[in-house]
Amino acid sequence: MTDIAAIEAAATRLTGHIRRTPLLSSPFLDALAGRRVLVKAECLQHTGSFKARGGWSAVSALPAADRARGVIAFSSGNHAQGVAAAARAFGCPAVIVMPADAPKLKIDNTRALGAEVVLYDRAGGENREDIGAALAEARGLTLIRPYDEPLVIAGQGTCGLELAEQAAEAGVAQADVLVCCGGGGLSAGVALALESRAPGLRVRPVEPAGFDDVARSLAAGERLSNTAPSGSICDAIVTPSPGEITFPILRRLCGPGLVVTDDEALRAMAAAFARLKIVLEPGGAVSLAAALFRPDEIAGDTVICVASGGNADGATFAGALTRFGTGD
Amino acid sequence: MTDIAAIEAAATRLTGHIRRTPLLSSPFLDALAGRRVLVKAECLQHTGSFKARGGWSAVSALPAADRARGVIAFSSGNHAQGVAAAARAFGCPAVIVMPADAPKLKIDNTRALGAEVVLYDRAGGENREDIGAALAEARGLTLIRPYDEPLVIAGQGTCGLELAEQAAEAGVAQADVLVCCGGGGLSAGVALALESRAPGLRVRPVEPAGFDDVARSLAAGERLSNTAPSGSICDAIVTPSPGEITFPILRRLCGPGLVVTDDEALRAMAAAFARLKIVLEPGGAVSLAAALFRPDEIAGDTVICVASGGNADGATFAGALTRFGTGD
Repeated sequence: MTDIAAIEAAATRLTGHIRRTPLLSSPFLDALAGRRVLVKAECLQHTGSFKARGGWSAVSALPAADRARGVIAFSSGNHAQGVAAAARAFGCPAVIVMPADAPKLKIDNTRALGAEVVLYDRAGGENREDIGAALAEARGLTLIRPYDEPLVIAGQGTCGLELAEQAAEAGVAQADVLVCCGGGGLSAGVALALESRAPGLRVRPVEPAGFDDVARSLAAGERLSNTAPSGSICDAIVTPSPGEITFPILRRLCGPGLVVTDDEALRAMAAAFARLKIVLEPGGAVSLAAALFRPDEIAGDTVICVASGGNADGATFAGALTRFGTGD
Repeated sequence: MTDIAAIEAAATRLTGHIRRTPLLSSPFLDALAGRRVLVKAECLQHTGSFKARGGWSAVSALPAADRARGVIAFSSGNHAQGVAAAARAFGCPAVIVMPADAPKLKIDNTRALGAEVVLYDRAGGENREDIGAALAEARGLTLIRPYDEPLVIAGQGTCGLELAEQAAEAGVAQADVLVCCGGGGLSAGVALALESRAPGLRVRPVEPAGFDDVARSLAAGERLSNTAPSGSICDAIVTPSPGEITFPILRRLCGPGLVVTDDEALRAMAAAFARLKIVLEPGGAVSLAAALFRPDEIAGDTVICVASGGNADGATFAGALTRFGTGD
């Protein structure tokens, strides 16, 4: 059960190991969006995404004996790096099962962080759960799920604790908080933290077009799935459906989901480059894209965006700048 | 006279208006440099560079009657935006004299920040001092110099106050602090702050090859000039010679200067993109370039870099990524 006490406990474990990421802004983005835009730059977190919070939260909470045997995770990139970095800090073996077609930079980084990377053939139909289960059983590894795991949700919730403080410092008591959403771990954790600490701030999940399972599920009141397994450049937040644990939290606390196109995500990356001087990956930019390009679907004179990750490859990033300039 | 009291007074005026920029790091950069690398990300400052500090410091200290008449500055970009942003916040007219061949983005941004931009023909031999003096006299404007101005140096020194605190939090008492250096305003301000607050931290100015007037002046013990007026991609830090006011401070407090090539600056931009998720412009990346590519000229097991600005144009940035990948 994830609640504010679990998030506070995670915050204590994370102190000194996780960055308090800044809340950035630019008058140029305000003008483009037609309201004040505040961006929580989680791309500046260790490992380049908020996933370092959940990884540290889960690994740090393990009993020592379990940690000594090691952990295992499935991930196409950011969760992999978050778990690998935490495991290395604790001297804990980490096995990461990654699709062979994951971005090469993410695979290389995960290895460089000391993890054993096991690649599987996603297109060829290999099942990562089978591979993982066999490894976990053979070696006694503890599985760390990317979002449907209370300790991970509690870790992501620490981003919400910071946001509640930072919004108060910025004089914002009432606003929509746009959160890039895959399985819903970050959205759920932030929503729980804000429920206690800043009840005037309401989370709104943002997804890429064609992979809006959370938005549709929230509208329907039940968990729905995407039809396609992949096909968006927003690889970090493409998941089959909302989580079993995350969805009830999202349903209780979040406003309607928002959906943006891949091109709008790329344009938001260009705007973040030019106006905030931060690097976002497509999946980490959908929240800003919604703020900039879906103004009529947002309420209030201020909007907050959690820009969740920056592990973009150079070619994608260079392409976004070439196509979209400063994102205006 | 700029001293620690002037820097503290500037810090008081700047509170709530200037960001405390984060001190970032990455295990990948540590490995590349062969020592721990800490990066003070001044690119995340308002207006995209540390110049917002000096601009605010100078404008906020003006008597109200002077402020009502307005300010004037000469700048090819970052100082222009720093002064323009501060002037706008105080409702103070600002005239910025810029070369017609300055980066278009910097000209556009300066105008968008509400300043009146007067362009002059640098190549055609127009003299900006003459243009500025005529305007200043006609309208009673106060000139804000980019570095040889005690209030500006005091403002830049607030970066050093933050750095002293952040280095202590990171457990660093002894280190070289590499600072991107043009006329020496930032280097002088930071050096003065560190002298009082963190005397184990020593500033080392970093310049682009061919424009190493400060390094040569420090070695010679007197102010020397560059032979070429322009020709480096590091436009933000190309100045003819160290300042009259800044040089004695640099000479008293700084270690030897460091020099990097334009390509090394571009490579450092790629490394900062991939490993820190921040955007640096060439002139803002020379400090990181020296940390990564001049390890033998640096002492100690930790090095601190002030990454001074991020106002890169998209084409230059995309080119750096295309050529240098992750900067390894």
